[in-house]
Amino acid sequence: MTTFDDYTLQAAQLDASNPLAAARGHFDLPETESYFLGNSLGPLTHAARAAVVRTLDDEWRNGLVRTWHDGDWLDLAGATGDLVARVIGAPAGSVIAGDSTSVALFKVLSAAAHINKSPTRRVMLCDSRNFPTDRYVARSVADLFGLDFVELEVTDMPARFGDDVAVMTASMIDYRSADLHDVGAVTAAAHEHCILTVWDLAHAAGAVKCDVLANDVDFAVGCGYKYLNGGPGAPAYMYAAPRIIGSVNQPIPGWFGHAEPFAFEDTYRPADGVARFSSGTTHVLSMKAMHAALGVITSFPIDDLRSTCIRLGDFFVEGYDRFLSTSGFGLGSRRDGSLRGGHIALLHPDAERMSKELIARGLVVDFRPPDVIRVAFSPLFLRFADVARLVGELSNLE
Amino acid sequence: MTTFDDYTLQAAQLDASNPLAAARGHFDLPETESYFLGNSLGPLTHAARAAVVRTLDDEWRNGLVRTWHDGDWLDLAGATGDLVARVIGAPAGSVIAGDSTSVALFKVLSAAAHINKSPTRRVMLCDSRNFPTDRYVARSVADLFGLDFVELEVTDMPARFGDDVAVMTASMIDYRSADLHDVGAVTAAAHEHCILTVWDLAHAAGAVKCDVLANDVDFAVGCGYKYLNGGPGAPAYMYAAPRIIGSVNQPIPGWFGHAEPFAFEDTYRPADGVARFSSGTTHVLSMKAMHAALGVITSFPIDDLRSTCIRLGDFFVEGYDRFLSTSGFGLGSRRDGSLRGGHIALLHPDAERMSKELIARGLVVDFRPPDVIRVAFSPLFLRFADVARLVGELSNLE
Repeated sequence: MTTFDDYTLQAAQLDASNPLAAARGHFDLPETESYFLGNSLGPLTHAARAAVVRTLDDEWRNGLVRTWHDGDWLDLAGATGDLVARVIGAPAGSVIAGDSTSVALFKVLSAAAHINKSPTRRVMLCDSRNFPTDRYVARSVADLFGLDFVELEVTDMPARFGDDVAVMTASMIDYRSADLHDVGAVTAAAHEHCILTVWDLAHAAGAVKCDVLANDVDFAVGCGYKYLNGGPGAPAYMYAAPRIIGSVNQPIPGWFGHAEPFAFEDTYRPADGVARFSSGTTHVLSMKAMHAALGVITSFPIDDLRSTCIRLGDFFVEGYDRFLSTSGFGLGSRRDGSLRGGHIALLHPDAERMSKELIARGLVVDFRPPDVIRVAFSPLFLRFADVARLVGELSNLE
Repeated sequence: MTTFDDYTLQAAQLDASNPLAAARGHFDLPETESYFLGNSLGPLTHAARAAVVRTLDDEWRNGLVRTWHDGDWLDLAGATGDLVARVIGAPAGSVIAGDSTSVALFKVLSAAAHINKSPTRRVMLCDSRNFPTDRYVARSVADLFGLDFVELEVTDMPARFGDDVAVMTASMIDYRSADLHDVGAVTAAAHEHCILTVWDLAHAAGAVKCDVLANDVDFAVGCGYKYLNGGPGAPAYMYAAPRIIGSVNQPIPGWFGHAEPFAFEDTYRPADGVARFSSGTTHVLSMKAMHAALGVITSFPIDDLRSTCIRLGDFFVEGYDRFLSTSGFGLGSRRDGSLRGGHIALLHPDAERMSKELIARGLVVDFRPPDVIRVAFSPLFLRFADVARLVGELSNLE
């Protein structure tokens, strides 16, 4: 038996003992492919397909506008938010789905700046390794509220925290390296200086435990189309700690955030809870897919999601050590699974060509310039056998 | 032959000569109902259903994240905007779809305020009869930019225009009365004082000719789910005159509005054209339905849409005069079809009970407190026979 046969056998054993093995049956996956981009666009679930088709053929076709009152459309953003809440460790009623992540971050950062800006608090700190959109939006909010905008690495933030800082914003997971930041510790350090924290969970929710309530996070946003499998361009979501939501004013006050949307009042009166982050009409078709996909993810324990995600990644690192590390590859992510999000950056000078070759062989990964092959270990549908196959193909690429 | 038989016969003749009679075949409508709420949620088209199902079963299921590059998702907001452009009389490349109308209005009003606010221009004028969300958003933008917020009727605006006004915003069609405002004349009067104009076309596009280019409108927004039939919570759209788009800065700069979304640059660099109004990822499922529905509406001449819409409304007014006007009903909209949008407000002290009764009989209308039965004449699928049926039932309600 070759050492690679042994690795493959090990994969089969890990698949057999994976507590999430049954979850794969909820997905409608191309048979011949191994899909390592659940961090980019999660795959279709049978539930999402069924929900969207039912919305087309019954709720829209037959119910028409009446479904707004007779069906579940009106509360869909809140019901979807409640499912997200279970994934990110938030209480029911503290999350609302809707908008894109950019718009969601704009609203939440504006709310935080509005609450905490003062003549002496004039600084916004932003994760310098944040996803570019987050940095663009954060800078714009800082400009709009007259805050000084300072970018620095999350790990350097605690040393910079002071009573001149109004708001900090960062991603829980670095979208390139998959570094997992210690949300609890950074948030606690921020709170020592009464700084409001706004975390982007886009690359975290569904792959790591976010525990926003336990970590005492003030605000969070995230997107629905990665590990949550909500579909292409799925709506985003917004979280506010229950202790703070009553103080929230956000700059796009629309009817869906009004205390009584259909009273058509002359003046805006925000809804009591997190619904006040809503603005316009829920994008029903997109939201239905997301709601249904969240039904799948929330039917499995979040602890199992996290442990399977780590074990898939660790198994890849093991394969890297045994079969790849002497062939010009490097590891651009942490070895310790507990410090890593759901993906791993594999480095190689020839990463671009290799990525194309892998995709041609049915191993769907992505290339990030200049030298990264990014592979994600979405825990609900990926098999250890897929990981073994990836390692095997990588070792044969040259 | 009774006079009502005569009215019904007239309906049959008008249906036979309706240049849009064939358009109804594009819709998947409940067989036994007459649907008078195309102004609230347009019905399902076969094309929208097919597009969404294809997106689920092929583009998402099989293509997965690759469809962002191999398929049409990346340009979908622009392609959808180009179809909207044909409906509202805008040049190709001047409209982008996305977000909700509230968010869209926020961005567009902010852009206008950013361009035109000055130490001497410190006023925003807002249509006092505007849809409530528009008024909430406009007030919020005025607050954010330090503008005085003044609400007044559109017809009173020209008298108020002066060199102290930065921006005016109004709806082309009054969502209650259906009053059609003279966009060209109001805009020209505004321009005499270098005021920027922001028109909401939500209740106009698809029912009247908006002619935003010919009317020299600066900015416009609208929603996709009314006469455009884009589906529940369909995305909104944003228009900027080509002469002004290069000056636009909007406060939610996201990657989809960046000149090179996938270059992941450190600094925001807006796209050349109207795409700079985009922020986050396109809500693909919702946008696909809207794109396909717009394929239907743009396959018919906009002049026919307008003329059929007017004739359906006029035929209802004729029925009102002949069968309803002596039974406690009143007309809450203008008699002259050329001064009216796509709907008519029918007044009756017992409107609420009557609306319920009509719906129970398969005539789908809506009630607006205190005394309005609102009926819309969406020109692509409604038949004169539906109008005759409505008048007949109304005359028998007591």
